[in-house]
Amino acid sequence: MKTSISLEEAQSSLLELVQPVKQSQVSLFDAVGRVLCRDIQSGVNLPTFNKSPLDGYALQAKDTEQAELSNPVILEVIEEVRAGFMPENKVISGSTIKVMTGAPIPEGANEIVKYEDVKREGNFIKLFYPLTPGKNVIQAGEDVLQGETIAQRGTLLTPPLVGLLAAIGVAEVPVYEKVKIAILSTGDELLDPSKELLPGKIYNSNLHSLGAFCSQLGAEPISMGIVPDEKDAIVERITQALKESDLVITTGGVSVGDYDVVPDALKQIGADKIFWKVDMKPGSPVIAAKQNNKLIIGLSGNPAAALITFDLIVVPLIKKMMGLEKQFPAKIFAILTENFNKPSQQRRFLRAKVQRNNEVNYVKLTGEQSNGVLKSMIDCNALIDVPAGSGPLIAGQEVSAVVLGNDHGSFIGEV
Amino acid sequence: MKTSISLEEAQSSLLELVQPVKQSQVSLFDAVGRVLCRDIQSGVNLPTFNKSPLDGYALQAKDTEQAELSNPVILEVIEEVRAGFMPENKVISGSTIKVMTGAPIPEGANEIVKYEDVKREGNFIKLFYPLTPGKNVIQAGEDVLQGETIAQRGTLLTPPLVGLLAAIGVAEVPVYEKVKIAILSTGDELLDPSKELLPGKIYNSNLHSLGAFCSQLGAEPISMGIVPDEKDAIVERITQALKESDLVITTGGVSVGDYDVVPDALKQIGADKIFWKVDMKPGSPVIAAKQNNKLIIGLSGNPAAALITFDLIVVPLIKKMMGLEKQFPAKIFAILTENFNKPSQQRRFLRAKVQRNNEVNYVKLTGEQSNGVLKSMIDCNALIDVPAGSGPLIAGQEVSAVVLGNDHGSFIGEV
Repeated sequence: MKTSISLEEAQSSLLELVQPVKQSQVSLFDAVGRVLCRDIQSGVNLPTFNKSPLDGYALQAKDTEQAELSNPVILEVIEEVRAGFMPENKVISGSTIKVMTGAPIPEGANEIVKYEDVKREGNFIKLFYPLTPGKNVIQAGEDVLQGETIAQRGTLLTPPLVGLLAAIGVAEVPVYEKVKIAILSTGDELLDPSKELLPGKIYNSNLHSLGAFCSQLGAEPISMGIVPDEKDAIVERITQALKESDLVITTGGVSVGDYDVVPDALKQIGADKIFWKVDMKPGSPVIAAKQNNKLIIGLSGNPAAALITFDLIVVPLIKKMMGLEKQFPAKIFAILTENFNKPSQQRRFLRAKVQRNNEVNYVKLTGEQSNGVLKSMIDCNALIDVPAGSGPLIAGQEVSAVVLGNDHGSFIGEV
Repeated sequence: MKTSISLEEAQSSLLELVQPVKQSQVSLFDAVGRVLCRDIQSGVNLPTFNKSPLDGYALQAKDTEQAELSNPVILEVIEEVRAGFMPENKVISGSTIKVMTGAPIPEGANEIVKYEDVKREGNFIKLFYPLTPGKNVIQAGEDVLQGETIAQRGTLLTPPLVGLLAAIGVAEVPVYEKVKIAILSTGDELLDPSKELLPGKIYNSNLHSLGAFCSQLGAEPISMGIVPDEKDAIVERITQALKESDLVITTGGVSVGDYDVVPDALKQIGADKIFWKVDMKPGSPVIAAKQNNKLIIGLSGNPAAALITFDLIVVPLIKKMMGLEKQFPAKIFAILTENFNKPSQQRRFLRAKVQRNNEVNYVKLTGEQSNGVLKSMIDCNALIDVPAGSGPLIAGQEVSAVVLGNDHGSFIGEV
């Protein structure tokens, strides 16, 4: 087992141990936010037939060659076709078929003239200028050709892509299953927020914040509840969690104190430890182990530390298991707008908010940076990456930051 | 009824007619992505009691005033307290209580000395240097003070906020109900993608793309299916949709052709028409009406036009109904990287993709721009806003664009 490794080593050593989860399929109505598990080729041309882009008359363009204002060409209207219906007749020289927007181009016709550009008299229309064949025709396959790959494995299903799948007649979509993530919190001091607060106890936030994080990613959180700091109880609960999930996350009990029993529990289960402790603050006591091809990641019990290590170490794993191609968050540079007076002996991630102004990224701290403080996570959309051995940070200096995905569509410049 | 109004007039005239939907509450496990319907004040200090940030010994700092390496102070260890438990004794001068990380500070103690900094001998510890009161104590209320507003009405519930609510003991969260959006597609030519393709028919994509869009926003789409181009059928289906939803969206049948019967259907229902036709391409024939305080918005049946007008006109409405404070997408400037050779008589929105490079936004078109073409919506993360009366666009020129929210965390600079 490695110890005190770099964040990057922790990320890559875990990432190579996971694969996308099983393939499945869902109905189009449930497909948005899921990930394609195979390439999608279109079985049809889109549109499937040549069709009219407007309300008008289908005709043979060569019939109009001699047309002029003073000497109009006259064609007989032999049929009318609405969108959704097939013409019963062919267009032959001297005849025309009225077509509505979206109607198929009748056999024999090669152009549509607009309603407004002809004069209708009884069953005849008068045309006053020559027409170009094919100008007002939507060609079959203009949008998508039969056999064309419209989306590749690993693509996140967005609303337009769901629409395109519908348009080519894919009603059941091949997607990866939802990744099942079991979360359990260890600690004698923990109470669920639905319970009455007792002296010396605190409400457990980790189960809820990490569960919400999993839901937001499109994974399925499974709450394994709160477990006391007792090795046997933790062994039993992790064993159960491994049965029910693809990935097990624990919080608390990973330091080196007398009651930090998660490492011992992992040993008793027989899990292969991959690493313990990552060179970063907050959250350094992360432990990772593998049992029967499933990973168990033990995070710090400190709420902010748990969220930050989840963001940096666990989210890329979940994304790979979901089948997504892009797993790591964006890195940016930004100008710090305030001082941070503490030196950083260890590599440190500071909770911060990046905003753009005049094409420049500015970053400010979101408040108290202690391990346990949650409030400064609320407005946090980025983590300033402070290298080990840094002195105090000064307003105006450029810093590097990792962009977090939890600010829903506010936009920052990616490096 | 107004006609051929500007996009901005369409947006504002509708926005003033809607309000956030009813208030409700959900369990913390279901809260992420929902919107708070009232301010949340904390009922407790967070942490709720003074506690130890480390494993150590709780003592009275004044006992250590004379401590030095050659002349250590000796204290008697009278108890041991784990996180989650209350001390049974007070710390008095000459005594100390062993405390684990997260344990309450015992009465009488005002500082914690680290494990590693003392020498334990039986029931006694030796201290070698003076300590500062309060240095190693996490104060009650350090994160959140009792009575403090931790989040305001209109706030989207993110994972850290869900965690903070858990930490202050909020197990049921006051949120707005999910906005129910009924969607129906009109058109004799339409088939559901689950059906066999028939001559002259096409698969309906709008119900699926718009439904997926609603789901992604956190609203609840209700499929009202496909309705033929018959006024009575449309009247009946819209009437049903109004009963089941907060907002009704239709696609198709809003132009001025012989079979565009949605405007007539709205008239028959007795709905007050608000406007018909917006000065923009694609999607201009949008119609909006109000019946019993509910809006009915009729969009073009062309797939791309429907999606773009949904993005620009309907999404802000849904966001206001969800209770969100920010309703409009970001506007940016970007450098166009290719020519667009057509002049734009009307204001036009072009499907495009913005990417940043060296702190500059670059924008390219995502393909064919015809009303019906869906493929160019797939990679689209922005719409170039081309003013009416523009000539062809030239590579290298600066353009204005509206950023769409469907690219999940790829980041662009906001103006």
